Amino acid sequence: MQNSSAALGELHLPSSFPASSKRYIAGSRPDLRVPYREITQSATQLAQGVEQNPPLPVYDCSGPFTDPDCSIDLARGLPALRRAWIDERADTEWLSGPSSEYGRQRANDLLSLHLRFPVPPKPRRARSGQNVTQMHYARKGIITPEMEFVALRESLRIEELCADPAYAALLRRHRGQAFGAGIPEQVTPEFVRQEIAAGRAILPANINHPELEPMIIGRNFKVKINGNIGNSAVTSSLAEEVDKMVWAIHWGSDTIMDLSTGKHIHETREWILRNAPVPIGTVPLYQALEKVDGAAEELSWELLRDTLVEQAEQGVDYFTLHAGVLLASIPLTARRITGIVSRGGSIMAKWCLAHHQENFIYAHFDEICEIMKAYDVSFSLGDGLRPGSIYDANDEAQFAELRTLGELTERAWHNDVQVMIEGPGHVPMQLIQENMEQELRHCFEAPFYTLGPLVTDIAPGYDHITSTIGAAQIGWYGTAMLCYVTPKEHLGLPNKEDVRTGIVSYRIAAHAADLAKGWPGAQLRDNALSKARFEFRWEDQFNLSLDPVRAREYHDETLPHEAAKTVHFCSMCGPKFCSMKITQEIRDKYAHGELDPMADKAREFRERGSEVYL
Amino acid sequence: MQNSSAALGELHLPSSFPASSKRYIAGSRPDLRVPYREITQSATQLAQGVEQNPPLPVYDCSGPFTDPDCSIDLARGLPALRRAWIDERADTEWLSGPSSEYGRQRANDLLSLHLRFPVPPKPRRARSGQNVTQMHYARKGIITPEMEFVALRESLRIEELCADPAYAALLRRHRGQAFGAGIPEQVTPEFVRQEIAAGRAILPANINHPELEPMIIGRNFKVKINGNIGNSAVTSSLAEEVDKMVWAIHWGSDTIMDLSTGKHIHETREWILRNAPVPIGTVPLYQALEKVDGAAEELSWELLRDTLVEQAEQGVDYFTLHAGVLLASIPLTARRITGIVSRGGSIMAKWCLAHHQENFIYAHFDEICEIMKAYDVSFSLGDGLRPGSIYDANDEAQFAELRTLGELTERAWHNDVQVMIEGPGHVPMQLIQENMEQELRHCFEAPFYTLGPLVTDIAPGYDHITSTIGAAQIGWYGTAMLCYVTPKEHLGLPNKEDVRTGIVSYRIAAHAADLAKGWPGAQLRDNALSKARFEFRWEDQFNLSLDPVRAREYHDETLPHEAAKTVHFCSMCGPKFCSMKITQEIRDKYAHGELDPMADKAREFRERGSEVYL
Repeated sequence: MQNSSAALGELHLPSSFPASSKRYIAGSRPDLRVPYREITQSATQLAQGVEQNPPLPVYDCSGPFTDPDCSIDLARGLPALRRAWIDERADTEWLSGPSSEYGRQRANDLLSLHLRFPVPPKPRRARSGQNVTQMHYARKGIITPEMEFVALRESLRIEELCADPAYAALLRRHRGQAFGAGIPEQVTPEFVRQEIAAGRAILPANINHPELEPMIIGRNFKVKINGNIGNSAVTSSLAEEVDKMVWAIHWGSDTIMDLSTGKHIHETREWILRNAPVPIGTVPLYQALEKVDGAAEELSWELLRDTLVEQAEQGVDYFTLHAGVLLASIPLTARRITGIVSRGGSIMAKWCLAHHQENFIYAHFDEICEIMKAYDVSFSLGDGLRPGSIYDANDEAQFAELRTLGELTERAWHNDVQVMIEGPGHVPMQLIQENMEQELRHCFEAPFYTLGPLVTDIAPGYDHITSTIGAAQIGWYGTAMLCYVTPKEHLGLPNKEDVRTGIVSYRIAAHAADLAKGWPGAQLRDNALSKARFEFRWEDQFNLSLDPVRAREYHDETLPHEAAKTVHFCSMCGPKFCSMKITQEIRDKYAHGELDPMADKAREFRERGSEVYL
Repeated sequence: MQNSSAALGELHLPSSFPASSKRYIAGSRPDLRVPYREITQSATQLAQGVEQNPPLPVYDCSGPFTDPDCSIDLARGLPALRRAWIDERADTEWLSGPSSEYGRQRANDLLSLHLRFPVPPKPRRARSGQNVTQMHYARKGIITPEMEFVALRESLRIEELCADPAYAALLRRHRGQAFGAGIPEQVTPEFVRQEIAAGRAILPANINHPELEPMIIGRNFKVKINGNIGNSAVTSSLAEEVDKMVWAIHWGSDTIMDLSTGKHIHETREWILRNAPVPIGTVPLYQALEKVDGAAEELSWELLRDTLVEQAEQGVDYFTLHAGVLLASIPLTARRITGIVSRGGSIMAKWCLAHHQENFIYAHFDEICEIMKAYDVSFSLGDGLRPGSIYDANDEAQFAELRTLGELTERAWHNDVQVMIEGPGHVPMQLIQENMEQELRHCFEAPFYTLGPLVTDIAPGYDHITSTIGAAQIGWYGTAMLCYVTPKEHLGLPNKEDVRTGIVSYRIAAHAADLAKGWPGAQLRDNALSKARFEFRWEDQFNLSLDPVRAREYHDETLPHEAAKTVHFCSMCGPKFCSMKITQEIRDKYAHGELDPMADKAREFRERGSEVYL
């Protein structure tokens, strides 16, 4: 791994997954190549010979970092995959430099020179009168390369696999329960276009983030997860944050939110964006507050506006904006146990109270839409009044804000700007479904993006678990993207191990939701892994898992020898006693023709009931 | 901690929870004292003075080990709490020694002398013609001290708390959704009796396990969890198993299953039982198989019978018996991906096939009932054909067995023997509820006791999480007890840290289910912890959590200084930026009378809409 800038310090990029190769699906044009990971399986040894087990394609958001054919240089950034697509649309113009005041100031700041990304690209912007959002194209009936890309990515060769007899047994699956979602058997580019046009899905893809491998967030697609990174005033550095981003996408984070609140936010963000193959989201208010040294009452629309332009020109793909924290809603939180727990929400509440004026993000929403559509930044409408405790769940403050977000969704859509809606938080299980239903109703099926929810408050240190329980459920009910929670939630800043644990936990939740909704092909990996497990193909079991490293490590703790990975038992039962071994013996009996006599015997039992033995 | 026997080696018993005291609720007789843990809270510092926060009672299954007034000597065992209650019923007789052949053989075996519990109690048994089950008493209208004990334990002083103004704010709660369960506002001894009489709950309490602190398992009570321990042929020792038992109940395991399969099963079990304040369950078939050196086909009814008596006379409280694996059902598993994964199920299947005879546990079920009622051992009817993979969930093999278990439930109840029903396993979310519904229908509301279920197969190394997602849901739907799964599931034998993680994960699932069902008082702890969190009472937040040690450790990783536990921010946001701090400022404004003008302003907004600012 080359690393030509001193600013970053040393990065420890993860090595690739075992038995895995980077593969690409060819699209309709040579520069449209959709990455996936292919996991090779070993063969099954049967008495009558060897049975091949087919390779498994899995969704891959780790980007070029896991492609041995790509040479990575963090100081140059990733290849600009989408540049030609954006060029061809001929609706943007290059700027000579940042048009935000702050962006220009940073570009001229000698003190941060050593921290700066060496070759920042010039920003581009929609030409006057143009709208460059994917929603705008979709509504004009245009299928962009980005849309085709996500169609191929979501379906992941399912049509081919269905036609291949080697996959027939592995593709068997249960019927899903999708709570009204309209999941297609195969995702076509036209389906993607329709979903984006209808606002049921977003394709976050800022024109200044051409390094992005397009992905889609919507109820009728695979459930996605987001991982948060970001330094704070108390701890962590620039290098750590880039490192965490690469680490998080390695484990499967579909998007990354950079929630930095400390120094050098601008520079950190540039490094992250230039090396991010996934959409990057931010909460621009955090940086705006930094600019007024933490005094919320000194915030202003002008300051936020400049920050939005600054970040849009760097390439941020979606903005969390707490536009729904209205002056009228603030008193509704006074009787809560945990008041306002969203950082953005509390900043805006403080501002509103200090000025006795309406939230300036709400007040200037249409002007914000103008910025969003000039760069294709998507709204992630923040839930500033989300509940921070079980007690506060589903209260009037929360739902009043949700209705405001619905109103803003319509205004954004009026501008062809993409929108998703953020959701809670802390919610006991019996109140989760109402969150989804209210969101669908009041926000017109705009994608829901929830934090957890945590289903109890009593387990700090385990909130990746309290929240995964809620996340799996709300994902099943229709939430499009799940924001991860790490074991450090409420307690401290996550380290790399916490990030890994959080990401893998949320991949579990998202996959469980896909299975439950009946996403075509989702069960393939479960079936393959279970078959490997049953056949004592230990290596395949590890390789097919979400975290092969940990699976292998746990196995080896009790049985470290290499030989133990080919034996037909595990440490839980020991050699004499393995249930899977016994079942395999039973099945061998069947395979050798002893099934029929048994079936006769069984039939006899069924007919005569149990009287024979009683 | 005294430890006078060399057999055990060194035990490392956990220290008590911080800020906690052992307390007892006095029952109707002096020897009826129901333990609970009381967590002390610090006061809230307000501008206008100090507000006391009341102490919190929490359910406690850690037994005398956490009572500083009890001197523990593992080699003498715990006090025989229930001995007088059993004596008074005058329906049992003392035996001169073990009546099982194997029990006598072990008692005379000099080679295991050094491993033996030093003072094994004489066994007792129902006098001829007597039935000593709690169900039998319940059906005769008798409220036993055990029933009163669990009534007090389940309600945990809720009536007192409701009458105390100090708890008023903390007792506010959401309405539950209980899926037809009949949860009482307060648990009375008569309610307990009715539930046991109806078979909707069991109170597992072998007359040879007088050390037991009674607890109850049923849909209309708090959701319980079970932790498994047990050595295997490959690894772990006697001392480790006793150690794990004490460790598991410390973290909150309501019952313990001893699944030992290696040497010295008998001796290990005695040590565990004599020191166990919680019900102990076993799978007697595992030991029976040990006795025939692992050759399933050599098992016999006589051997199992002797093993049941042996274990019943030691004091095992419930037996998992795979009585529903019928010859006719075995072929139904042949097309599964993972066949038969239950150890007990595969043993019985192998036996049935080898002999072409019906399952001898099924065939001798009525004789087994005679044993169960002579000692009050409860049935845990095993699901030998449970699905071991997502693909195999809810298939005919599984539900055919469930219907058989229903038939056996009726036969057990005919003998006034207590029954719970074991359930899966691996089940995708959309198929979980059907499991609960089928169980309630076919097994007449007998308590359901499930393993997980795991909602996906693809995350070995994280199966405490894949299964907690399913466990929380099925607990909500009505499952009475959840069998824990550790991170080592499918990979190896859990160590102590894995046991702790598994137990705490399942306490989360059980509590989330209690909250969702609307159990009175369940939300009290969430409210108290959230209030502490909001008020930056860090120590209280740690102390009120399920795992105070881990919460504190995670906090201290970023902010190790003692001072950081009294400051009004955390490492996630830093001092300038804490949302909770900002909200507290907002609330202070309200407290100082600024609420009213704001409310007026808010009202104005609500009436005039947003036109003012647009």
